[in-house]
Amino acid sequence: MEEAAHPYVPRDLKLPGYVPMTLSMSSILTVYLGASLFVVTLVWFLFGRKKPQLDKLLMCWWAFTGLTHMVLEGYFVFSPEFFKDNKSCFLAEVWKEYSKGDSRYASRDSAVIAVEGITAVIEGPACLLAVYAIAKGKSYSYVLQLAISLGQLYGCLVYFITAILEGDNFATNSFYYYSYYIGANGWWVLIPFLVSYRCWIKICASAANNVEAAAKTKKKNR
Amino acid sequence: MEEAAHPYVPRDLKLPGYVPMTLSMSSILTVYLGASLFVVTLVWFLFGRKKPQLDKLLMCWWAFTGLTHMVLEGYFVFSPEFFKDNKSCFLAEVWKEYSKGDSRYASRDSAVIAVEGITAVIEGPACLLAVYAIAKGKSYSYVLQLAISLGQLYGCLVYFITAILEGDNFATNSFYYYSYYIGANGWWVLIPFLVSYRCWIKICASAANNVEAAAKTKKKNR
Repeated sequence: MEEAAHPYVPRDLKLPGYVPMTLSMSSILTVYLGASLFVVTLVWFLFGRKKPQLDKLLMCWWAFTGLTHMVLEGYFVFSPEFFKDNKSCFLAEVWKEYSKGDSRYASRDSAVIAVEGITAVIEGPACLLAVYAIAKGKSYSYVLQLAISLGQLYGCLVYFITAILEGDNFATNSFYYYSYYIGANGWWVLIPFLVSYRCWIKICASAANNVEAAAKTKKKNR
Repeated sequence: MEEAAHPYVPRDLKLPGYVPMTLSMSSILTVYLGASLFVVTLVWFLFGRKKPQLDKLLMCWWAFTGLTHMVLEGYFVFSPEFFKDNKSCFLAEVWKEYSKGDSRYASRDSAVIAVEGITAVIEGPACLLAVYAIAKGKSYSYVLQLAISLGQLYGCLVYFITAILEGDNFATNSFYYYSYYIGANGWWVLIPFLVSYRCWIKICASAANNVEAAAKTKKKNR
């Protein structure tokens, strides 16, 4: 039986049992963005009613990124043979499509699996906890958001550095390189950077306030 | 010319130009531990004079781990051909020896280089900043220590997960596996875990204090 040719680069990549995609790029994007919009709208109107705009926005981000980590990336981590899927499973189709931007997903590069595993198993649930922490104004809210954001940044660094070290030749063409590999991941560099910067400032301000308050109390008690 | 046989596993690993070690394990450990003891003693007596014991201990840890990251791991990252070194360079000998516990250092595994690169270039200098931050009681002291510790933990996770995914067969024998690969790295799991736990608690306590103080002020101003 002749193997179906895969669309991935490097062209000599062996993917025995590969089953071609059935969903189009636009269907995949529509479902993913539609589901994400649904989640974001739900969080915005249900959980963030009495919150400032920025907190509501952050809750939406954490819900969106947390579910992406757990559902999409979680499926990838625990489905080593997604490229053989012949039931048009949506999640398998997502990764067949994304592999056009980075074939290391199809070839199960160990650095990619390690980063995605940490992201799906540890960071995903932590993101949902961040939604709760912001909603309830928990004292660990900023430090949790900082920890996850730094984890996302560390993951992106490992992801990009290993690609460069291995020759940076994993995209089917420059459209997929810039839209999937750079474009999609770019959001997970930009937003975690902004969030961690904000949390860092908030945590430092809180620490400085405390030192000041302690100094005042000391002066008073003299 | 016949190649010198290397001591690493897997046995079929190709290391063209490999030059055997000249320093013994005990000389390498003596120099590394001696230099570390010197740094730790210096920090303990010079910088931490009026500090509580725990702060002094932490400053020693940050100085030790920062210099290890920058000097040892920095050398590894930027010396792709350390295994060819024939001048008995101490740092090359360190990595020739350590590769007996994990041959991915000699074979330039990309996940190992990515993690070591982040550790040497970003975390190393950040550790020295942590010494300064503790010494001067800076408001960013805890958050910086937390960020570095979480980075160290993330790095260890990637390091161990990729080894497992690639077959966990990179040690010359079980002595090197347990002493170098597990034993030496274990400290960089245990200590960052304890440090990040402590910093997390401190940051949360500070945030809770602030909320309380703000509530009091609000009540007073009514």
